[in-house]
Amino acid sequence: MPGNSFGNIFNLTTFGESHGIAIGGVIDGCPSGITIDFDAIQNEMNRRKPGQSEIVTQRKEPDTVEFLSGIFEGVTTGTSIGFIIKNTNQKSKDYSHIKDVYRPSHADYTYEKKYGVRDYRGGGRSSARETACRVVAGALAKQVLPELKINAYTSSVGSIFLEKPYQELDFTKTESNPVRCPDSDVAETMINRIKEIRKAGDTIGGTVTCVIQNVPIGLGEPVFDKLHAELGKAMLSINAVKGFEYGSGFCGAKMKGSEHNDLFNEDGTTQTNLSGGVQGGISNGMDIYFRVAFKPVATVIQKQNTLDKSGNIVEMQGKGRHDPCVVPRAIPIVEAMAALVMVDFYLLNKLYQ
Amino acid sequence: MPGNSFGNIFNLTTFGESHGIAIGGVIDGCPSGITIDFDAIQNEMNRRKPGQSEIVTQRKEPDTVEFLSGIFEGVTTGTSIGFIIKNTNQKSKDYSHIKDVYRPSHADYTYEKKYGVRDYRGGGRSSARETACRVVAGALAKQVLPELKINAYTSSVGSIFLEKPYQELDFTKTESNPVRCPDSDVAETMINRIKEIRKAGDTIGGTVTCVIQNVPIGLGEPVFDKLHAELGKAMLSINAVKGFEYGSGFCGAKMKGSEHNDLFNEDGTTQTNLSGGVQGGISNGMDIYFRVAFKPVATVIQKQNTLDKSGNIVEMQGKGRHDPCVVPRAIPIVEAMAALVMVDFYLLNKLYQ
Amino acid sequence: MPGNSFGNIFNLTTFGESHGIAIGGVIDGCPSGITIDFDAIQNEMNRRKPGQSEIVTQRKEPDTVEFLSGIFEGVTTGTSIGFIIKNTNQKSKDYSHIKDVYRPSHADYTYEKKYGVRDYRGGGRSSARETACRVVAGALAKQVLPELKINAYTSSVGSIFLEKPYQELDFTKTESNPVRCPDSDVAETMINRIKEIRKAGDTIGGTVTCVIQNVPIGLGEPVFDKLHAELGKAMLSINAVKGFEYGSGFCGAKMKGSEHNDLFNEDGTTQTNLSGGVQGGISNGMDIYFRVAFKPVATVIQKQNTLDKSGNIVEMQGKGRHDPCVVPRAIPIVEAMAALVMVDFYLLNKLYQ
Amino acid sequence: MPGNSFGNIFNLTTFGESHGIAIGGVIDGCPSGITIDFDAIQNEMNRRKPGQSEIVTQRKEPDTVEFLSGIFEGVTTGTSIGFIIKNTNQKSKDYSHIKDVYRPSHADYTYEKKYGVRDYRGGGRSSARETACRVVAGALAKQVLPELKINAYTSSVGSIFLEKPYQELDFTKTESNPVRCPDSDVAETMINRIKEIRKAGDTIGGTVTCVIQNVPIGLGEPVFDKLHAELGKAMLSINAVKGFEYGSGFCGAKMKGSEHNDLFNEDGTTQTNLSGGVQGGISNGMDIYFRVAFKPVATVIQKQNTLDKSGNIVEMQGKGRHDPCVVPRAIPIVEAMAALVMVDFYLLNKLYQ
Repeated sequence: MPGNSFGNIFNLTTFGESHGIAIGGVIDGCPSGITIDFDAIQNEMNRRKPGQSEIVTQRKEPDTVEFLSGIFEGVTTGTSIGFIIKNTNQKSKDYSHIKDVYRPSHADYTYEKKYGVRDYRGGGRSSARETACRVVAGALAKQVLPELKINAYTSSVGSIFLEKPYQELDFTKTESNPVRCPDSDVAETMINRIKEIRKAGDTIGGTVTCVIQNVPIGLGEPVFDKLHAELGKAMLSINAVKGFEYGSGFCGAKMKGSEHNDLFNEDGTTQTNLSGGVQGGISNGMDIYFRVAFKPVATVIQKQNTLDKSGNIVEMQGKGRHDPCVVPRAIPIVEAMAALVMVDFYLLNKLYQ
Repeated sequence: MPGNSFGNIFNLTTFGESHGIAIGGVIDGCPSGITIDFDAIQNEMNRRKPGQSEIVTQRKEPDTVEFLSGIFEGVTTGTSIGFIIKNTNQKSKDYSHIKDVYRPSHADYTYEKKYGVRDYRGGGRSSARETACRVVAGALAKQVLPELKINAYTSSVGSIFLEKPYQELDFTKTESNPVRCPDSDVAETMINRIKEIRKAGDTIGGTVTCVIQNVPIGLGEPVFDKLHAELGKAMLSINAVKGFEYGSGFCGAKMKGSEHNDLFNEDGTTQTNLSGGVQGGISNGMDIYFRVAFKPVATVIQKQNTLDKSGNIVEMQGKGRHDPCVVPRAIPIVEAMAALVMVDFYLLNKLYQ
Repeated sequence: MPGNSFGNIFNLTTFGESHGIAIGGVIDGCPSGITIDFDAIQNEMNRRKPGQSEIVTQRKEPDTVEFLSGIFEGVTTGTSIGFIIKNTNQKSKDYSHIKDVYRPSHADYTYEKKYGVRDYRGGGRSSARETACRVVAGALAKQVLPELKINAYTSSVGSIFLEKPYQELDFTKTESNPVRCPDSDVAETMINRIKEIRKAGDTIGGTVTCVIQNVPIGLGEPVFDKLHAELGKAMLSINAVKGFEYGSGFCGAKMKGSEHNDLFNEDGTTQTNLSGGVQGGISNGMDIYFRVAFKPVATVIQKQNTLDKSGNIVEMQGKGRHDPCVVPRAIPIVEAMAALVMVDFYLLNKLYQ
Repeated sequence: MPGNSFGNIFNLTTFGESHGIAIGGVIDGCPSGITIDFDAIQNEMNRRKPGQSEIVTQRKEPDTVEFLSGIFEGVTTGTSIGFIIKNTNQKSKDYSHIKDVYRPSHADYTYEKKYGVRDYRGGGRSSARETACRVVAGALAKQVLPELKINAYTSSVGSIFLEKPYQELDFTKTESNPVRCPDSDVAETMINRIKEIRKAGDTIGGTVTCVIQNVPIGLGEPVFDKLHAELGKAMLSINAVKGFEYGSGFCGAKMKGSEHNDLFNEDGTTQTNLSGGVQGGISNGMDIYFRVAFKPVATVIQKQNTLDKSGNIVEMQGKGRHDPCVVPRAIPIVEAMAALVMVDFYLLNKLYQ
């Protein structure tokens, strides 16, 4: 109810602040009998963790996940899976300068107005550090439905776009460069752009494209819980996301029906896939693909005017270790949230069989 | 769980097929003591109903809502509010031609694969007729929080865009033309385009922009149930929607942090509003605005090849009474879903006070 | 959330007041492909309806259920099932005498304090008329899992107890007498007692025993949603219920472990069944049995002092058509609620397989 | 959904097995701004912990709760509160003798049938160790609504009953003896009985009575989520509970309406309170009181025949450190679950105001 849980059946509840003792969560509804590959989970954590390359924040966190329950002798037991990730790099002093001010376009002001108090250290609960727990749960979800192939990649940084359709990309190259763009030429341009931006003490936005393949037919609950509506909510719940489109997306709004309809093949597949693998809120077995817009990080290492608790406009100088562009680290988060949605609907669909 | 309910506190559960006896729903969690303006509700129904103008489907339905419970002597009692809308124009014979075929880019195929059976008449449960129930609940929600101002309008039809920012528009003019665009010149171009499209037996997509004003500060539950994430899900759950963006949206993904940050005024308002009224998933009191992409209606009055139940490709000729463009009738639906989300979070926020 | 819904997967949401236009509900999560036996549903309604015998209220209601959606050509489609039951016998004038008073041990006072308003006619939403909707949904649930055998019967009226254990009873005789006690001698004593009580203008309590047989192993979610905990909640949610015990129940609290343990047979069944078919919150395949206590109906046809809205103690004379003992009509309600719980857990258990 | 969560608004999700690394949970929906008394929470833990007296299990666990989030500078922030309790006394070898057998009247058999695997060490997830997390959350809930007075006590052990009505008891004496019976004479008899039972290697059942005073009027959601129905579910979800009754309970089923009705005083209180403080599922401000039946612990230190995984009947000898009677340690658990229910409904009721 208060928004710290996600999923109907495969359900994740998270807790934790950026600079508290630990963050963590509970995964409920995971089927029993699944042999867990812990390295695969830690590997996803490593893709998200800070300090992994020169184009992301230099804050160092090992981000080691510890499972506390629900797995016995390496196998899930069907009971709830508790886990924690200790916060080892808690330089709370770094944040004393924001104790009494509300940073522009951060959540400081809204948290304080909503709750009356806030943990100001590193954004507290509003920090994207919380997404580490999503990656744990998503990595576990992938193991529930291993046949599903989920590949996200950076499709733009600022005005630099990867123009190729996903069908022409080699997803195995996504991890070959720190910006996680599977086209190495475009990747290099993006990386250079991010380095420039960082040097200027600024930040920049970008987009992530995600492709889900090998999808069972029939996933999604029509009416309010359409498959793409839950995917949209999942993505929009990630810090800094401003937009979501799937299939033909906003371009589809310019088209005519005679152009947009996906004609069938005899086997039930379609000749085109402007639908993006979802019709009437239910997967039709074709690839699901969608695009997610991330705004530029609000913390810039420049002087800005801002508001303090007493209602005065004051000058503040951003400092600390922040990402010049969130998109590279957002890739595993987008995949994790996609996995949570897909596995949840996969389990829910068992009820109809 | 099976997706026929929406909302945490102010909760709507709906039922009904396009050509069944009636559609309807239950509104639970409506506070007691609210004097209901039934005309205002019916008025919203009339904005959505078919046959209202020459640019929408000519199917005639009075769409009269009957309340069965939860309101006593004109006042809500705090108990669940049941309502029905009878289907009076059930020409089931109209649909015998689709009994054994799956229409392209409709939900026929996915429903049948998921459930094993389907009510083929007019799309059954997958028909946008279901959204009439959303309009009832949304109209009632507006009466729970009357200070909120929710205005949606047609911002594009195909490639015809209303380029003006919403601040320059006069929302009182939205209802002055059948396409529901508050700029009368652009409206006329849009209407002509829709007429052309209809004449060609084709359909066309478009976008809706929605602006929510006079928003209390503090609405939205951070982490998974961010205010904009629920708005996104609400919009994406409407038939034919392919994309959602709020505030700076996809444009924001091209920007730098130094350009994108909304600097504060001394009273806590901001000088710009690229955030779109939401920071960290919580409303900050500024206007909330978002844009929703609708694909062209899949039913075209042209010959198309399609698939039948036996796995043969067959030729079908679309017929029946359909919308050349859904956007004009989608306006009250977008507003209704926005009202449901806002009132739900408004009630939920009482818990913190 | 506001308590008008029941069930995780197989979910019932109800609405309606005793003297409104209609009561009804929505059944969501019913699997598709089930051929509905409408007569069986109406038959359950007839077991609950008023006026069926001389020992129940003489209010006449045909209680005909009308299904509005979710069933096509006699078969469930997997979409939500809406239904209504019209209130035909709305003598609102009967209740003008209670408009301004709070009847003792009724919900008049608490509803008014909670909601600020109340529909005083026949108790409004607090009337047991609401349970008719439970019977509809329960009768439908029985058809989802027809192998389950659910038999409830009257096990006491006042101090008249049916002492025989359920294993010695012939459940086919339950419907052979109006008090629904499968032992005809005890039934006669009970009937006579109820007639006496009615003649005195009084009412009397009683208990219902319910036995569920042919239960699949593995139903129930341990920890908070134990099978017997949900059964308990289901029963305690029925009007007038004051207690619930299953298996050895309150007697078990007097026993020693060496007496109480159910020793296994080689096939996993147990030699005794003090556990009542549930161990650790999960069904073990043995019979589930439980007992439910109903208080005497609060409406007595005698003079009583009571409180009016102005805070004065006033004399009131009960009138209207009420049950001298609710137990006979509660039998199908207990069975319906049991069916809802069992089918919900049956569907939920599919997730683990 | 899989039953590891409790509460609508004030929600607890738990995890952990008896002999895993740690147990713990997440409390979501706790209002912000509450100054936490950590000693009061630990004190409740100490009332539940093993080894506290000679009549309970001698297993030693410090049961120290560590809060990981949601509390900043001693004050709740409105975000989710994560906590863990480390398992320090994990003598897994103690349980090697039950690895391949199903203990009678334990959950071994049903867990294995449901999930296909089980953590056999100390009962794994089915162990009452899980209730420690409930006590943490309940103790915190008490601080949300400190005006509420919740007092549980041992009202019977085997056939030894505390016959006095609760109004004649001094609840401050409950903690003065290890059996937690506020009448010292009866307490002594109970303690002696438990010692005898322990000496015989046996166990014994008992009942707990709980009284909730100073209750706000209007708590509880009528129809399915009646206040007493949720209290009943809460109690029935505690390990070893077989029955629940409130107010007049099973005795009320023997009474006449003319005896049972609670007549009003002018101030809205009632002269008697057979209703047990709840009318129509909503609190009326009078004391809520209920009684909970606990069966004898299944682990007896005697030889018993039981079933092994291969389907053979084998002889087993119970060993380990177990409670001869769970009732004394169940007192804080009953109070905790009562607090969770009451605070949840208290918060939910804010929505109507």
